[in-house]
Amino acid sequence: MNQDLDALVFDAYGTIFDVHSVAAACEERFPGKGQALSTLWRSKQLEYTWLRSLMQRHADFDQVTAEALDFACRALGLEADADALQALPQEYHRLAPFADSLLGLRALQGSKRLAILSNGTPASLAAVVTHAGLNTMFEQVLSIEATGIFKPDPRVYQLAVDRLELERERIGFISSNGWDAAGAKAFGFTVFWVNRAGNPLEALGQRPDYIVKGLDEVARLVGG
Amino acid sequence: MNQDLDALVFDAYGTIFDVHSVAAACEERFPGKGQALSTLWRSKQLEYTWLRSLMQRHADFDQVTAEALDFACRALGLEADADALQALPQEYHRLAPFADSLLGLRALQGSKRLAILSNGTPASLAAVVTHAGLNTMFEQVLSIEATGIFKPDPRVYQLAVDRLELERERIGFISSNGWDAAGAKAFGFTVFWVNRAGNPLEALGQRPDYIVKGLDEVARLVGG
Repeated sequence: MNQDLDALVFDAYGTIFDVHSVAAACEERFPGKGQALSTLWRSKQLEYTWLRSLMQRHADFDQVTAEALDFACRALGLEADADALQALPQEYHRLAPFADSLLGLRALQGSKRLAILSNGTPASLAAVVTHAGLNTMFEQVLSIEATGIFKPDPRVYQLAVDRLELERERIGFISSNGWDAAGAKAFGFTVFWVNRAGNPLEALGQRPDYIVKGLDEVARLVGG
Repeated sequence: MNQDLDALVFDAYGTIFDVHSVAAACEERFPGKGQALSTLWRSKQLEYTWLRSLMQRHADFDQVTAEALDFACRALGLEADADALQALPQEYHRLAPFADSLLGLRALQGSKRLAILSNGTPASLAAVVTHAGLNTMFEQVLSIEATGIFKPDPRVYQLAVDRLELERERIGFISSNGWDAAGAKAFGFTVFWVNRAGNPLEALGQRPDYIVKGLDEVARLVGG
C-alpha cells in the first residue's frame, strides 16, 4: 500500500513541532503552575475549536488560543496581565521540531510530496515553519482557515484533496493527535498515528493504519 | 423579559440530576481512583460527542458513554472487566435530582411549559426521569437522537423549537454546562447558566442572560 501514496500530509502542532516550550514559558511566568496551566490551556484550546465548529461560530486559531489561555488563567486563579496574555501565545511561533521530525522529513524529501494541514492561521504556520528553517520542505502549508471550520470536520481533510489534486486514497496523513488521526481515517486517508508518549487509542470507532513512535518511522514505512 | 417565556427547557445530566453518584460508584469499584476515573470519563464522554458530531460518525449517548469509560479505564491503567464496563454506565439511570432542582421544578410546574433537552438516549432519559418520580413534571423529554447529532449543534436546539411549536424567543434554556449554555445562547434562547460550583465563564464569545446557583433561582427569576 505504501508505494500507492503520492503525498504525505502532516499535522503541525505536537506532530512536527514539539509544544513543550509552551509549558516551559508558562512555568517561567507562573512558577509551580506551568504544567497545570499549559495542560488546561491546550485542552481548552482544542475543546473551543470543536465547540465553535459545532456552534457555527468560527474564530481563527489565534483567537481561540488566546481565549483558551484567558479561561485557563481564570480557572487556576492566576493573575495574567495583558503582557502575559499577549506573550505566551507567541511561543507557538517558535516551536522546535522533534528530532525524529527532522530525520523523517529529510528522508522523505524528494520521494513524496509533503504538505502541512493544520488548525493554525496562515500567518502563525508561516512563522513556525520559517523559524524552524523548513520553508523549502513543504509543497504546501494548508490552514483550515480556507474552510472556516476546524478539524475533524471532513471539509478540512477535503482541503488537502483539493489543493493537492489527488484522490484521498493517494494521501497519507500523519498526526500525533489521536482524535485527528480518527477524523482523517473516517475521511478515508491512510493514517499514521504518531504515539510518542504511549497513549491509549481513542475509542472513536476508527483505527489508524499505522501506529508509529516518530516521523522517522513513517519514512521507513513508506520507503523514504 | 421573563414573562415573555412560554416554556423552559432543561438540560438533564448535571443540571437537573446530580452526577455525583457516578463518581461514588467509580470509587466503590476502584478505591482511591474513583475521582480520577469519573473526571476523565466525563471529559472523554463530552469530547467524543463533539468529535463524532464533527466527524459525522454519530453513535448514541449510551455507546459514547461506554466507549469513554473504556478509554478512561485504559488511560488510568484500571483493569475493568465486562461487569464493571456494563454496570457503571447504569448509574446514569438512577441519578438523584439536586435539592434545588426539585424546589425549582415544583415552583414552576403549572406556570410554564417544562421540557428536557438532553444528549441522552430516549430510554436512558425515561429511566432517570421515572426513577426520580418526575414523569408528570415535563410536557416533553427530548433526546438529541431525533436529530442524529449532539449539542451544541444548532439542530439540537431547533428540535425544542419544533416540538414545542414556539419561537426561540419564547423559550428559556437552563444548563449547568457552560458550553451548552453558550450553544443555546448562540442559537437564540434566553439562557440561564446554573453555576453551582462557581466555575469561570467559558470564553466562547457567548454570555448567558442569567447566572444562577440553582433551579430554585430560575423559578424566582421567571416568577414561578
